[in-house]
Amino acid sequence: MPPRSPFHSRLGEAAKTIREEKKMTQAQTAELMGVPASFLSDIERGVRNVSLSTLLSLSAALKVKLSELFKRAGN
Amino acid sequence: MPPRSPFHSRLGEAAKTIREEKKMTQAQTAELMGVPASFLSDIERGVRNVSLSTLLSLSAALKVKLSELFKRAGN
Repeated sequence: MPPRSPFHSRLGEAAKTIREEKKMTQAQTAELMGVPASFLSDIERGVRNVSLSTLLSLSAALKVKLSELFKRAGN
Repeated sequence: MPPRSPFHSRLGEAAKTIREEKKMTQAQTAELMGVPASFLSDIERGVRNVSLSTLLSLSAALKVKLSELFKRAGN
């Protein structure tokens, strides 16, 4: 599947970078979010049109504010 | 319908405050977003689990960065 938009890609890349900075694996992060690792992989590749609820669990799992995540993604 | 979560409410309130600061009506803003005014009303009341695509059109219509919107909503 192609990314949903260039910004969906940038947000996914920012989330992946933050996860890697925190030395967390996709599996660990997905478990904290209560989703399959494949779902998190889709988010990181920008192919999912994530909902606010999913953004909130991502934010909680990575311990990063959503304002910071969006800032790093350039919006 | 009840709000999806306390944070969905806060995000909706922040969006409404920004819209009002910019002296825009729900109808004008919804038209820029290409959605019915009732949909924007649902977002502002926190009862919709908005997607990233919808957040992007809201951000474009209100000319506000998503990082700023989330910051004002407290995340």
